Amino acid sequence: MTKFQFELKATEGQGNLGARRGTLTTAHGVIETPVFMPVGTAATVKAMTVDDVWATGAMIILANTYHLMLRPGPERVERLGGIRKLMGWDGPLLTDSGGFQVMSLGDLRKIDEDGVTFKSHLDGSKHRLTPERSTDIQRMLDATITMAFDECTPFPAEKDVAAASMRMSMRWAKRCREAFQHRPGYGQFGIVQGSIYPDLRAESVAALEDIDFEGYAVGGLAVGEGQQAMFETLEVTTPLMRADKPRYLMGVGKPDDIIGGIARGIDMFDCVMPTRSGRTGQAFTRRGAVNIKNARHAEDPRPLDEGCSCKACTHYSRAYLHHLFKAEEVLGLMLLSQHNITYYQDITRGARDAIENGEFDAYQRAFHEEYSSGDIEPL
Amino acid sequence: MTKFQFELKATEGQGNLGARRGTLTTAHGVIETPVFMPVGTAATVKAMTVDDVWATGAMIILANTYHLMLRPGPERVERLGGIRKLMGWDGPLLTDSGGFQVMSLGDLRKIDEDGVTFKSHLDGSKHRLTPERSTDIQRMLDATITMAFDECTPFPAEKDVAAASMRMSMRWAKRCREAFQHRPGYGQFGIVQGSIYPDLRAESVAALEDIDFEGYAVGGLAVGEGQQAMFETLEVTTPLMRADKPRYLMGVGKPDDIIGGIARGIDMFDCVMPTRSGRTGQAFTRRGAVNIKNARHAEDPRPLDEGCSCKACTHYSRAYLHHLFKAEEVLGLMLLSQHNITYYQDITRGARDAIENGEFDAYQRAFHEEYSSGDIEPL
Repeated sequence: MTKFQFELKATEGQGNLGARRGTLTTAHGVIETPVFMPVGTAATVKAMTVDDVWATGAMIILANTYHLMLRPGPERVERLGGIRKLMGWDGPLLTDSGGFQVMSLGDLRKIDEDGVTFKSHLDGSKHRLTPERSTDIQRMLDATITMAFDECTPFPAEKDVAAASMRMSMRWAKRCREAFQHRPGYGQFGIVQGSIYPDLRAESVAALEDIDFEGYAVGGLAVGEGQQAMFETLEVTTPLMRADKPRYLMGVGKPDDIIGGIARGIDMFDCVMPTRSGRTGQAFTRRGAVNIKNARHAEDPRPLDEGCSCKACTHYSRAYLHHLFKAEEVLGLMLLSQHNITYYQDITRGARDAIENGEFDAYQRAFHEEYSSGDIEPL
Repeated sequence: MTKFQFELKATEGQGNLGARRGTLTTAHGVIETPVFMPVGTAATVKAMTVDDVWATGAMIILANTYHLMLRPGPERVERLGGIRKLMGWDGPLLTDSGGFQVMSLGDLRKIDEDGVTFKSHLDGSKHRLTPERSTDIQRMLDATITMAFDECTPFPAEKDVAAASMRMSMRWAKRCREAFQHRPGYGQFGIVQGSIYPDLRAESVAALEDIDFEGYAVGGLAVGEGQQAMFETLEVTTPLMRADKPRYLMGVGKPDDIIGGIARGIDMFDCVMPTRSGRTGQAFTRRGAVNIKNARHAEDPRPLDEGCSCKACTHYSRAYLHHLFKAEEVLGLMLLSQHNITYYQDITRGARDAIENGEFDAYQRAFHEEYSSGDIEPL
C-alpha cells in the first residue's frame, strides 16, 4: 500500500520562506513539486484528451466538486468508479470542496454555521453542502486529495468579518477531518484563511496544524487583492506552515504569480487561466502574453513560441492559429489550450530543475526578463 | 514526377455498374478507392487535429473554396504555401469549386452566363465567382484535385430548367478546363448534372468526356430527391461514365448511401454528416445511429461501438460521452467526430477488402443487416 507522503528534496532561500523542491507520493502516482495542476472542472480538462494532458507534462489534475455534484452527480460517479476512471485519467486527482463556487453564487446561496444551502446555476434546484457532505462527495468522486470545505472570505473584508469567517472555516475544517475516510495513499488538505491580516493567517495556520492534515492550502487569495498583497500575505504565512507537508496556493495564477509563489515556498498551484485564456485566443509564451486574434499574426509563418515543444508550436504557424480563431474553429482552442498548459508545465519544470541545482534565484530573474521582453517583432 | 493516374484493380457486379476497387495516384499520395473524404471546410476537419484525421484511416480530405476565398482569402493562402501546408495535411486534398455554397445563398447571389455575383455570409461584402476565378482560386489553394465550377441544379426542377442549367454548367466546365493549369500529379474533375432525367445525365456525361478531365463527379444529388431517386439516377449515369477514370459522388451521405453508391460504381464520397452529427451527439455505429444524449446512456459503462478502434470507443464509456454532451464539453464533440469519421473509414475499408475478394455483395447484405439491427440493449 502506497503511503501519502511528502519528501522535501531541496530548498533555496531564506529559512522556511524560500523555494522548495519536493516529491509527493500518492496512491495514484508521484507528483514532483512545485507543480501546476490543470483544471478539469467537469471531469475534462477543457478541449483536451487525457493523452493531450499527459503530453504537456502534467502530473495531477483538479476537478470541481460543485460542478460534478450537480452533473453527473456524486452517487452516479461513484457507481461508475470515480472521476479518474470515468474520464480515463490514471494519475492523481485533487478535488476542491465546492466551497469557492458555492460562495460565488451570491443571492443563490445562504450560509449558516452548519453549512451552505444553494440553488444550482443549471436548473435552480436546491442543494446543500456541509463539511461532512462535501467530504463525502469527494470520497465518492474518488479524489486522491480531498480539500476541506471552507468559506473563501471575500476581498476586501473588515478584520472582524475576516476573523469570524476564518474561525468558522476552522470549525468546519475540524468537521471535515472527522468526516474524512482515511485510505492509503489518499490525503486531505486544510485551507488557511484570514484575508490579508497576518495575525489571522497565523491563527488559521495554528488551528489547522492542531487538526493535522496531510497537506495545507492557502486560500482566499487571488480574489482581487492584487499580486503585491498576495505575495505579502504569503510572506507572513508560508514561514509559519510546516515544512514537511505540501503547500498549495489555490486558484493561482498568471505565470509570474506562479514563479513568485514558488519563491515564497508554495509547492502546488491550479488555475483555469491557461485553458480559459486559450479558448479566447490568449496565449502565454516565453515572451509574455500574445493575443493570436491580432491582425499582425495573419500571415506570420513562425510558431507561436519557438521555445515550446507542444503540438501547436511544432506543427502550426501563427497564421494558421490566427485563422482558426477568426473562423471560430474548435481546433484553435484545442491547440491553444495545449500550448498554454504546456507552457505552465514548462515554467514549473524549469523551477524544479533550478531549485535542485540551487539556481532558482537566477531562474526567477531570467524568467522575468524574458517574460517582460515583449513578443517577437512582426515580420 | 508523379502522374495523376487511376488504376482499376477489381470490379464486382453487372458490367460497368458494379462496385469498383481502384487506386488513385496523385502528387500528394496514393488513394485507395472506394474512399470517403472527411470535410475540412475552413482548412480544418472540425474538432480534429490532422493526426486525429490520419488515425481514422483517411487518405484524402476536402476543403471548401467558398469559405476559404472569404477567409483567409486565396492570395493569402497562396503566400502561406497553400491549404495543405497551412493546415499541416501532407496528403491529397480536394477542393470544391464554391459553386454549391454560392448557389445556396439564395437572395444573396445572382447568376449570369459568365458567373455568379454574391454577398459574403460573413460581412455582406460583394464577391464574384466565374469558372476561371474558381479554377484559379483552387490553384492558389494548391488543391490536388480541382473541381469544375458548376450550377448545382435545385431539386425538384422541371426538365427544361434542368436542361438549361446543365448545359450552362457544361459550357462552364469547358472554361474551367481551359483555365486549369496542368501540374504533374494534380487533376481536375468535371461534374455531371441533369437532375433526375436520364437523357440529360447522358448528355452531360458525353459533354464532359468531350472536354476530357482526370476524373468525373456526379453532382446535383443528395439535394432532397431521396435515396431511391438518387440510386436510380446513379444506375442510369455511372454505366455511361468511363471506367478508367475515378467517379466521385458529391456530398453523399449516410452510411447506407455510401454503401449503395459503391454498389453503383462510385469511387469517392464526401459528406459533412459524420463531423456535423458528431457535434450534435449523433454517433454512427455498426448497429445504426445512436444519440448519445439519450438518458439511457447515462450510466452505461460500455463503449459506444464495441467493434470500433477509435479513441472514443477504446478509452471511454457511453456514460462519459453522455456526460460530456450534457455538460456541453468540447471533448465530447472531439471524440464523437473522431468516432464518426473512423466509422466511415471502416465501412469504406471493408468495402475495398470485399471487392478485392469478390465478396462485396455479401458485404453489402451483412452491412445492412447489422446497421438496421438496432442499438445494443440497455443495461
